[in-house]
Amino acid sequence: MAASTEVEKKNLKEEPEQVVNPWEVSSKGKIDYDKLIDRFGCQKLDDTLISRLERLTSRAPHVFLRRGVFFAHRDFADILDAYERGDKFYLYTGRGPSSEALHLGHLIPFMFTKYLQDVFKVPLVIQLTDDEKFFWKNLTVEECRRLARENAKDIIACGFDISKTFIFSDFNYVGGSFYKNMCEVATRVTYNQAVGIFGFAGEDHIGKVSFPPVQAVPSFPSSFPHLFSGKENLRCLIPCAIDQDPYFRMTRDVAPRMGFNKPALIESLFFPALQGETGKMSASDPNSAIYVTDSAKDIKNKVNKHAFSGGQDSVEKHRQLGANLEVDIPIKYLTFFLEDDAELEHIKKEYGEGRMLTGEVKQRLIQVLTELVERHRRARASVTEEMVDAFMAVRPLPHMFD
Amino acid sequence: MAASTEVEKKNLKEEPEQVVNPWEVSSKGKIDYDKLIDRFGCQKLDDTLISRLERLTSRAPHVFLRRGVFFAHRDFADILDAYERGDKFYLYTGRGPSSEALHLGHLIPFMFTKYLQDVFKVPLVIQLTDDEKFFWKNLTVEECRRLARENAKDIIACGFDISKTFIFSDFNYVGGSFYKNMCEVATRVTYNQAVGIFGFAGEDHIGKVSFPPVQAVPSFPSSFPHLFSGKENLRCLIPCAIDQDPYFRMTRDVAPRMGFNKPALIESLFFPALQGETGKMSASDPNSAIYVTDSAKDIKNKVNKHAFSGGQDSVEKHRQLGANLEVDIPIKYLTFFLEDDAELEHIKKEYGEGRMLTGEVKQRLIQVLTELVERHRRARASVTEEMVDAFMAVRPLPHMFD
Repeated sequence: MAASTEVEKKNLKEEPEQVVNPWEVSSKGKIDYDKLIDRFGCQKLDDTLISRLERLTSRAPHVFLRRGVFFAHRDFADILDAYERGDKFYLYTGRGPSSEALHLGHLIPFMFTKYLQDVFKVPLVIQLTDDEKFFWKNLTVEECRRLARENAKDIIACGFDISKTFIFSDFNYVGGSFYKNMCEVATRVTYNQAVGIFGFAGEDHIGKVSFPPVQAVPSFPSSFPHLFSGKENLRCLIPCAIDQDPYFRMTRDVAPRMGFNKPALIESLFFPALQGETGKMSASDPNSAIYVTDSAKDIKNKVNKHAFSGGQDSVEKHRQLGANLEVDIPIKYLTFFLEDDAELEHIKKEYGEGRMLTGEVKQRLIQVLTELVERHRRARASVTEEMVDAFMAVRPLPHMFD
Repeated sequence: MAASTEVEKKNLKEEPEQVVNPWEVSSKGKIDYDKLIDRFGCQKLDDTLISRLERLTSRAPHVFLRRGVFFAHRDFADILDAYERGDKFYLYTGRGPSSEALHLGHLIPFMFTKYLQDVFKVPLVIQLTDDEKFFWKNLTVEECRRLARENAKDIIACGFDISKTFIFSDFNYVGGSFYKNMCEVATRVTYNQAVGIFGFAGEDHIGKVSFPPVQAVPSFPSSFPHLFSGKENLRCLIPCAIDQDPYFRMTRDVAPRMGFNKPALIESLFFPALQGETGKMSASDPNSAIYVTDSAKDIKNKVNKHAFSGGQDSVEKHRQLGANLEVDIPIKYLTFFLEDDAELEHIKKEYGEGRMLTGEVKQRLIQVLTELVERHRRARASVTEEMVDAFMAVRPLPHMFD
C-alpha cells in the first residue's frame, strides 16, 4: 500500500553494534545519534528552529534545547506554524511505570514538557502505560497499577498545571472512544509491519503485538472526548526520548488514513549512565543512576565513586593534557542540569585545559544534583492522594487553552 | 510449557476438504462432525448425559438435545455435578453482529440458551463482538455498533429474563476489569500458538491477533465485577456452535494459569443452507437462508424453490423408492424446529417410504417456519429502545440466581 511506506521503509533492523527500540538501548561505543536520525527518518532540530521558537514564545529556549538534549523532531516546524497562526495544539507524553523510584533520566521528558506547557499554554495528556509494563516485565497487574500511581506523584511534582493536564493509566482508561481508536489503528498495521517496526518474534505473547495501538491513540484528539470533543483537527506534539520513535512512526503512517493529523515529535538524547555513555541507565544496577529518592550522601558517594571521569590518571598529566570532555560524565550531567550557560562554559574550558580537577567538577555536580533532588523530594512530598485523583479524573478542562 | 498442550496439540490445520474455524465453515461433502470432535478434542454429548440433565431439571430435554443439534461438549458433566451439589454457575454466549437481519441459524444458540436459563435459573452474559466484526468485515466502527444494537433486539425477542441477563457490546464494555483480564490472557498465548489455533498470516492486521482474548474473558467471572464480585470461583457454561471451539480451547488452556475454572461448553451442529448441508448459510446469498424478516410469501417461495429435496425425480419413482432423508433439507429443518417428536417420526417414515411427497413435507415446513418467524417478528416489534438500554445497562442483578 503506497500510504504505508513510512512504516515499511524505516524498520528497526539495527546493525548489531547499536540497538535502539522502546525496550532496549545498547551500543558498543557511544550511541551514534546522527545514524539514528537517518535510520528513523526524523529531522535534526537545528538552531534556526530553536531561534524561531524563542522569537514566537518570547522566552529563552529551555536548557535542553540550548544544549542539544532535545535534538531531533518530526514536523515541529508545523507546530510552530500553527502556533503562529493562533491555532491550538496539545501535548502528549507518557511513562511506562516499571519502577518505584524515578531516576534523573526519567525526569527529563517531564521537565521539558512542563516548559512546553508553560510557554505554549496548551493542554497535556500523560499516559501511564501500566499495561505495557505488565506485558514486558514480570509484574502483576496490581503492581503495575500501583507503580503507575506512585509515578504519577513524581510527575505531578514536576509542576504541571492541573487546569491543563490529564494523567491516565491504561488499565483505568482503555475503553470507549480510546478503544475504538485502538481498533482503528490495529486494522491498519499488519503483523509483518509490526515485526518490521518492533522486532517481535513468534514466541512473543500476543499482548506485545496488541500494545502498539495503545501507545498510538493518545496522538488523536478523539481518544479524549471529555477534552477534545468537536476538535478532531487539533494537532498533537509529543516530547519523548528517541527510543519511542518507532511507536510514532507507526502512528504517523496510520494517522492520515484515519483522517487525523500526524502527531509532531520533539525527541531527546538518552541520559547517560554514571559509568559512561553507552546507553540508558539500568534499573538493575542502582549505582548506574541517581534516583530522585537518593539522599545527599548517596548522591555524593555515587558521583565520587561511579561517575566516569575524562580526567587524566595523575594530577601532573591532567595539568598538562586536560580532561577529555567527550567522555566525562560530570560534564555531561552538568550539561543537562546546570542552568547557567556562562558557568558551564567556564567549567568546560578550565577542566578541558587542565586547570580544574575532576574532584572540583564532581563537587559542583554534587551541589547541582543535590539541589535538584531535594527540590523534587519537597515537591513530591506535598503531592496528596487527592491531587493524584484530581489529575487522573476523567473531566473536561475548560481553561486548557487560557 | 506443559500446561499449554491443549492449545498446542489441537490446532486448526484442517485437511483441505473440511475447513471449520470461527470465520469459515466449508466442506466438499457433508461436514464430518465426528472428525471435528476428534480434531478439536471435545466430547460427544451422549444419551446418559441428556437423561441426567432431564432427571436433574425435571424438564423434558430441549428439542435441540433430543435431535442431536447440540451434540458435543467440554466438561458439561462438571456443570451438572455442580448443579446437583447446589453450586451456582453462569451462562455465556454471544454474537458477531455483521448483518442487520438474523437468519434461523443465528437464533439456534439463543433459543437453546433461553432453555438453559429457564431450567437452571442462572445468570447469562451475552457478548456482541462488534469489534470482531470491525476487524474482519469491511464495516465502520459506527456501523458495527449499530448492528450490535439491532441484533440485541432480536436476541431480547428470544425471551431472556432481564433480571438474569446482561447484554454488552465490546465497543461499549471493553475496559476496567475486562481489559485487565484481556491483558492477562494475552500474556499467556504466544503469536505462534495463536497462528496454530486461528491460522493467522503475517499479512493479517494486528487487530485480528489482538481479538481472541476479547472473546476469551467473558468466561471469567471477574470480567463482570458488577455481577460476580467476590464470586471468582463461579463456573461458566458456554452454549455455542462448534466453529467457536478454537476460542474456548485457547481460553481453557489459559484459565487455570490465571486461577480460574475452565469454562464448560455445549456445542451445536451448523444449521444447513437451503441448498444442502455443506456448511453454514451465506449472508451473501439471501436465497440460502430463511431470515427472521422474511414474509410468509418469502418463506413459501424459498422453501418451495430452493430447499434441497431428497425426494425422487418422478412421483412414480418416489412412491417406489422413497426419499433420501439424509440429504433432505425440509426434513433437516423440521428436525430443528418441529417440536412434536411423534409427528416428526411419522413424517420421516411416510416420506422415507414414499407415501408422502416432497411437496407435502415442504408444506408442513412452511407452516412451522411461518409460525416461528411470525412469533419472532411480533416479539421483536415489542422490544423498545428502552428495553435495549435496560438489558445493556452495567448493573448488578440481585435476583440472578432466584
